[in-house]
Parts: sequence; structure tokens; C-alpha cells
Amino acid sequence: MASIQQSFEIQTRGRGTIEITAQVARLVSASGIGAGIAHIFVQHTSCSLMITENADPSVRRDLETLATRWAPDGDPDYRHDTEGDDDMAAHARSVLTGNSVSVPVGAGKLMHGAWQGIYLWEHRTVPHTRSIVVTVVG
Amino acid sequence: MASIQQSFEIQTRGRGTIEITAQVARLVSASGIGAGIAHIFVQHTSCSLMITENADPSVRRDLETLATRWAPDGDPDYRHDTEGDDDMAAHARSVLTGNSVSVPVGAGKLMHGAWQGIYLWEHRTVPHTRSIVVTVVG
Amino acid sequence: MASIQQSFEIQTRGRGTIEITAQVARLVSASGIGAGIAHIFVQHTSCSLMITENADPSVRRDLETLATRWAPDGDPDYRHDTEGDDDMAAHARSVLTGNSVSVPVGAGKLMHGAWQGIYLWEHRTVPHTRSIVVTVVG
Repeated sequence: MASIQQSFEIQTRGRGTIEITAQVARLVSASGIGAGIAHIFVQHTSCSLMITENADPSVRRDLETLATRWAPDGDPDYRHDTEGDDDMAAHARSVLTGNSVSVPVGAGKLMHGAWQGIYLWEHRTVPHTRSIVVTVVG
Repeated sequence: MASIQQSFEIQTRGRGTIEITAQVARLVSASGIGAGIAHIFVQHTSCSLMITENADPSVRRDLETLATRWAPDGDPDYRHDTEGDDDMAAHARSVLTGNSVSVPVGAGKLMHGAWQGIYLWEHRTVPHTRSIVVTVVG
Repeated sequence: MASIQQSFEIQTRGRGTIEITAQVARLVSASGIGAGIAHIFVQHTSCSLMITENADPSVRRDLETLATRWAPDGDPDYRHDTEGDDDMAAHARSVLTGNSVSVPVGAGKLMHGAWQGIYLWEHRTVPHTRSIVVTVVG
């Protein structure tokens, strides 16, 4: 049994998704842990981590479309708009889709399915630097 | 401290829920791990794992009803429809409700509440074979 | 490597959020675990755990506003209403926002971001006693 942990930063370009599967896979390989859990966590409340299809980019575009219904920008019912029209929408999308994902590790590798990618989903319209912490236990 | 891992498959009958609490509980018992975390992960992007009430089946029927609002089939705004009207709706429902759940293990048993069941939620209308990986660390 | 586990109860005042970050942080400190994962789980299907902004309380008020759209009380399409108009809405909000969160532990402390708080989100209108299980592995 062991546990390793490493942080890294991702520079986003505003609203949209950035795949981080390869970075996480490298940390898992470097950990030397054979079987366990890889836990990926983002230290912010206005972006998310999610696992979704890695093949057709239109899946992520359609998720963006649906997100505008789940938590619209600039909704007249919001009280929290300190940082602009996308501020509360970003917090709500973060809560709905989550700020961590965890993936089993087996034979020293991430055991995600063939079509699963791990994505950072930036919900703010302006670019941000996002800190991600990966912990592997096993 | 130890870690055990096992995979199994579930054959779905199309859209709907299948309870997997008993399968997970058996793996936890077999692991011999006294205290820790049971992590359950599905290797697909068009179904979910969730924990919800295990008593009245109408809860899961009502969740299905709400899901048609959260991510309707055949929405005219979708670009991703390669596999049919339920394709993008399934990906979106998977992101909203998540592809893993984790439950504490104590005294060698799953520590879910009395009314909590662990469910595989199939979002595609056609039956699928779904692979689930259970990892227990502790 | 080690694992510790402790349960505690929270008395809610009906629908709304209660921050539990300090309780979880104390258990992490007491665990003596340097690096790993803190897993927080609620043993119920009509409340949630979530991580969101801890600064402006209007964020949580706006989340409540959005939740009334995601899963309205007393929707005419619900079949499950045994315990009243808020019964099914509570189950649905629980599924959407999740009954566990997990946070990395590093240098013996919770590694959440500066603006992240851990909240119990009660979805029933009547006060309830809620059981939370914290497990730290590392």
C-alpha cells in the first residue's frame, strides 16, 4: 500500500473543455501503484472535472448547449453577480457536474473505458489558471 | 491496509435502472477489508451509477421523467446524433449524474443508509453490456 | 498507510445548506494521515453533500433558486409523493448533486481551495437529523 500526490496547473482559454487524461495517466504510471484509485480534484468552484466521450468533439459542444439551460448566464433571479453574468452560472455548473472524478487503477494503469476522457470544464468566459491535485492510493 | 479490485458485467434491458448493491456488498465482504472506501466505476459514457431510494420504485420512474427535461432525446440543438435520438441525451445524463459512486466500508461492510441502493442507470434505449469496476481500499 | 473513519450527525433546519468543512478538517488532523483522500458520505437520499463557494452566501441562495427548476416541488408528473410535495424533489436534487464528496489530504490537511467550502445541502422542507461518515485513507 502506498499513496502519491501531485499538483499541476492548467491554463484555460475561457469557457470550454481541456482533456487531462494523459497528464493523469503519467502520474499513475510514475506512482508505481499497481491497483487502487486515482482521485482528481480541482481547487475551484467555477469549473468542473468530468468524464465524457473522447471521440466526437460535438459531444462537449452539446454539453455546453445544455449547460446554458441548466444554469443560464445573467439570469434575472440570481443575486450573486459580483464577477459578471457568467459568475453564478459557473458556480451552478460546477455543483451540477462536480469538482472531482476518480478512476480505478489496475495493473499500474488508469482503468477508464476506451471512449472515456477526463476533462477540465472551464465555466468562466475569461481564461483562468486552474490547480488540479491528483492523489493515487492503493 | 490493502486494496482489492474486481470487475463484472451487467446486461441492461435499455433505459432504466438495475440495482447492484448486493454485488458490491459481496465483493466488500470477500475483500476482508475492515474499514475504508468502496469505489464503483462504470467504464462507459452513456450510463451512470447513482445512489437513490431503494424502497418505492416510483422514485426511479420519476427520475426518468426529470431526465427527459434535463437532457431530452432528439433535441434540435444537438450536433451529436450518430447513434440516434438518445445518443447525446445519454452522454448528458451520464455527466449530470456521474459514472462513479463511492461508499464507506466499516466493520467489513458497506455503510450505506437503510434506504440507499446503488443503481446502474442505463440511458440508452437499446440494451447494452456494461462493465463495472469495484475497488476497495482501506 | 492507514485508514480512519468517524461518523457524526448534523441537525438541519429544513431546506438549506450547513457548512461542515471545520468538522471534516478536525477529523483529518486527528487522523495523523499525511497524504491521501478524505471521503465524506451522507447516508440519506433526500439531502446532498457539495463543494461550493464559501464567501458570498447568495451563491447558495441562487443554487436553491436553480434547484427549484431542476426538480420542482409538487410537480404534477411525479408519482412518488408519499411524504409531501418536497419528497421527490429532494430525491432528484440528491441524485443531481451527489451524496459524497472527496478532497485530497496533503501535509496532514484538507487540500481544498481557498474559496471552497464543504456543505450539507438539506432538500427536505422539514428539519432532519443527518448522518455523515468521514473516511480518510492514505
